[in-house]
Amino acid sequence: MSKKIVIIGGVAAGPKAACHLKRLRPDWDVTVVDQDTLISYGGCGIPYYVCGDVSDEAELRSTSFHMVRDAKFFEKAKGVRVLTGTRALAIDRKARTVQVEDLESGEKKDLPWDRLMLATGASPFVLPIPGTDLDGVFTIANLHKAIEIKKRIARGQVGKAVVIGGGAIGIEMAEALTDLWGVETALVEFMPQLLPRIVDWQMAAMLKNHLQEKDVAVYTGEGASEIVGDDQGRVVAVKTPQRTLEADLVIMAAGVRPRSDLARDAGLLVAPWGGIVVNRRLQTSDPDIYAAGDCIATVNLVTGKETYAPLGSLANREGRIVADNMAGIPTTFDGVVGSFIMKAFERCIAATGISYETAVAEGFDADYALTAPSDRAHFFPGEAIVVYLLVFDRRTRRVLGLQGFGVMNDSISARIDAAAVMIAKGATIEDFMVAEMAYAPPFSAAIDSINAAAYVADNLCAGRLRKMEMDRFLAWMEDFDAEPGWMALDIRHPLETGPFVDKFGEDRWLAIPYNEVRDRYREIPDDKTMIILCDAGTRSYEVQVFLDHIGKKNTMVLSGGFNVIRRIGVDWLPG
Amino acid sequence: MSKKIVIIGGVAAGPKAACHLKRLRPDWDVTVVDQDTLISYGGCGIPYYVCGDVSDEAELRSTSFHMVRDAKFFEKAKGVRVLTGTRALAIDRKARTVQVEDLESGEKKDLPWDRLMLATGASPFVLPIPGTDLDGVFTIANLHKAIEIKKRIARGQVGKAVVIGGGAIGIEMAEALTDLWGVETALVEFMPQLLPRIVDWQMAAMLKNHLQEKDVAVYTGEGASEIVGDDQGRVVAVKTPQRTLEADLVIMAAGVRPRSDLARDAGLLVAPWGGIVVNRRLQTSDPDIYAAGDCIATVNLVTGKETYAPLGSLANREGRIVADNMAGIPTTFDGVVGSFIMKAFERCIAATGISYETAVAEGFDADYALTAPSDRAHFFPGEAIVVYLLVFDRRTRRVLGLQGFGVMNDSISARIDAAAVMIAKGATIEDFMVAEMAYAPPFSAAIDSINAAAYVADNLCAGRLRKMEMDRFLAWMEDFDAEPGWMALDIRHPLETGPFVDKFGEDRWLAIPYNEVRDRYREIPDDKTMIILCDAGTRSYEVQVFLDHIGKKNTMVLSGGFNVIRRIGVDWLPG
Repeated sequence: MSKKIVIIGGVAAGPKAACHLKRLRPDWDVTVVDQDTLISYGGCGIPYYVCGDVSDEAELRSTSFHMVRDAKFFEKAKGVRVLTGTRALAIDRKARTVQVEDLESGEKKDLPWDRLMLATGASPFVLPIPGTDLDGVFTIANLHKAIEIKKRIARGQVGKAVVIGGGAIGIEMAEALTDLWGVETALVEFMPQLLPRIVDWQMAAMLKNHLQEKDVAVYTGEGASEIVGDDQGRVVAVKTPQRTLEADLVIMAAGVRPRSDLARDAGLLVAPWGGIVVNRRLQTSDPDIYAAGDCIATVNLVTGKETYAPLGSLANREGRIVADNMAGIPTTFDGVVGSFIMKAFERCIAATGISYETAVAEGFDADYALTAPSDRAHFFPGEAIVVYLLVFDRRTRRVLGLQGFGVMNDSISARIDAAAVMIAKGATIEDFMVAEMAYAPPFSAAIDSINAAAYVADNLCAGRLRKMEMDRFLAWMEDFDAEPGWMALDIRHPLETGPFVDKFGEDRWLAIPYNEVRDRYREIPDDKTMIILCDAGTRSYEVQVFLDHIGKKNTMVLSGGFNVIRRIGVDWLPG
Repeated sequence: MSKKIVIIGGVAAGPKAACHLKRLRPDWDVTVVDQDTLISYGGCGIPYYVCGDVSDEAELRSTSFHMVRDAKFFEKAKGVRVLTGTRALAIDRKARTVQVEDLESGEKKDLPWDRLMLATGASPFVLPIPGTDLDGVFTIANLHKAIEIKKRIARGQVGKAVVIGGGAIGIEMAEALTDLWGVETALVEFMPQLLPRIVDWQMAAMLKNHLQEKDVAVYTGEGASEIVGDDQGRVVAVKTPQRTLEADLVIMAAGVRPRSDLARDAGLLVAPWGGIVVNRRLQTSDPDIYAAGDCIATVNLVTGKETYAPLGSLANREGRIVADNMAGIPTTFDGVVGSFIMKAFERCIAATGISYETAVAEGFDADYALTAPSDRAHFFPGEAIVVYLLVFDRRTRRVLGLQGFGVMNDSISARIDAAAVMIAKGATIEDFMVAEMAYAPPFSAAIDSINAAAYVADNLCAGRLRKMEMDRFLAWMEDFDAEPGWMALDIRHPLETGPFVDKFGEDRWLAIPYNEVRDRYREIPDDKTMIILCDAGTRSYEVQVFLDHIGKKNTMVLSGGFNVIRRIGVDWLPG
């Protein structure tokens, strides 16, 4: 028997559910309503539209075969009715109707439904500070905002911009403004690091350094306290407690919040923070009403706790699952591991699972391996160093997360994707040690980065490797007196170590090449804590094991080594 | 208590085991013997050395920090003794010794061991045909051969070359000869396709077409029957039953065979085809003798059957596991899924698990989804089509394999690696549908290729999608009379379909654009089998579902569509 389906929201989860459902149940009557006139667009592509990589906004709402996904397309190609410019005002669960308003005519009517789907998405968080309503202050709420931002830049009205928020969208927008348009751009992030809660500080520090190399002024640990306007109501600056940053354009990218008023008003269960509560079949507390996409609460598969994961890729997958279940095909969505990836100028940064910081906060017996391997065979042209951080639980040996930072290509993507599907299934260090990554010199090292990171984790768990935290080492480099008992044991090539010995002195910096340690270990003092240094940490580990064996146990290995230090950027490197 | 360890073989598994063991048990006495003088090299890098990407062979046997891994390096840096130019002659299991011969001095001696490791590798298969011993005929057995090949080319002695064998090494060598050196190169493969048993014919056909575009003459289904020499004993040609190919250089790359004579002579269990039999801890039938690398038999995790997987990446991982077990840390190697990847000129081809052909032969209720999605958001600059072939079992819905073919970057690597770790754990189509691949427009489509391939598999399993085999379609295009009841329903844009209608006629080629089918379906004849055609197969599926709904069930979808046809290369495309 034919059923009436109403879907509120026409960007990602909604259209996906509508089209899949129409294929499963071609005789059902499927209607999508959206308050916007532009629908079914790739919101994640907005920064690439603003920067000019995507020349026309219509490309963001076109199919891969270049048809614009407008209401007519959905009707003709998909058999789905779409009402644009139509706002859903209220859900009547008893009558099984939703009241909608045509925003142009003001006309209201009730749409009847047998099954309803909420795909109401998210709205950008507007900071509770003065000036957010000034002319020139934008959120990245929808395509219209993006079009307006690009228009202003193209007209030459933007010389200086401030981006508020150091999450993915903020960073992508900062790149878009700087890279193509040469807009002098500052980025402020309230938390002490970029991408807070997504990656650990080491990764964030390398990213920050790269943004600064690309002329983005980055201020972390510094929240916007006021947006200042002129007497015409146009933005002129952003104030933080530390400084005033001039701006013709301000982009607020301080995160998004689920749009769940409709659900709450209809008496559906909504989490205190706003996410619509759904079960594994994506049903709300009313089993005939489904929800998916940026408006729902989901489960983090690592912590087992409620989480929020507003991502276009998840919205699409969830949309298909809603359609399956509406059509009577039982399909479940168990939750997310939180896979994340982004391009930032010439770098890629990615993560899956939880960060070390989160793991500690969640009560895991957490530790991490920080490695800096080659992304392909070290003899293959174009090979580059990637930094990985593998988070694990010492007691269960479960892998909790993986983060990567390196040059902009798909190499990190490969490791993060493989890690994600393993972490989702509760994989251990052992699983990562034997993960069968496809090998040929143009694509990976014979020992893949994932395997190598797991080896380091294994060495840490077994107590064979004792590591020095990078932050403690960097602090020592700023103030040797803080730890007068420490000394560097630099095992790199003499050409590399020479300038360090010259600069920091032989009492701070002992240089013995890696392949001479077995002959010269007697030169290593016993009354100091020796910090073994190399480029990646691998050779340092070997030296530590040897020194342990001969009874010199006063060593710590700086994991990640100079490969990480150089990418974080420090001012004390000689030369 | 210190133990004596002898490891026979110094390329990959041997050195890896030696070094890891020395870190686990620094007081043990570890000796590696190898008959060669050059050891610990990346054999997989040989084609890149021959083509000049790697300028010096020493790079292939250097560390990432540019130290040559020779005997002295192993002694100084690793504490491992390496005897090069030393051949192991016989194992005395009672006396626990191995007799070795210094190949220079001819001196023989017995090395005592408490634990022995066989890492004897593989030797290239020499075809049982006349002429394999002619001057100018090479296998890629070791670095010396590679050095000699490069020398001859650099001296201008090679104008024409024939590569025998269409596996990875043969193809890589054909590229190396053609690409940098401009050598006129032919490649012959006895089996009907390139990369037999690794990928299915569709993928192999696209690869063949690309090699031909790059001026490699490829002859499949055509074995070398004789190598012809001149009266000075120098090679001049290769004969096949069909033709004679001139050659100054012949490379035999017809696969490798495990080197297991030592093991067999010592009474250890060896498979009939030559692989040394080991358990999950990589012990041979003598628990004090371990084996790893290209000389062992292992298990295919998809079929559960014995298999042979000679790969440097596996050898390294196995080497570490041997060391763990020797040192008393129980570690297991369960088997392989057979991950494979290679660069071929400007393309990447990769696979994991088993092919459709193999799955059918193994008795699975096998089917496959052939897709041709974008490798990243379709609006992102540089986006390209990748062809994927997902093999699955209809009854259990288990995914058995994934193959990819596309432009040369790491995008396919990401999908193959994620698939490999899932397939190793017995993942189903459902697991692939929800696999959480990291998404941002520069890296993937919102619906990742892996998810999309699983959707197609799901549609096939559910009977919602009926597909036409590509080979049947291509045969029909060569001879319409073979299937007089067939007709094409081309749903692409009129600009694309016009030339086809003109060329093949309206009675063979019906063109109705995708978004007009709901209005014009009455034009579709009921008395023909309609083959629905588009670029990838996605739109065709939607049209099939709609036509089924209205009662027109006389359709088949050409999966992969013109994206695959164009890459296979056909001569009937108009224009």
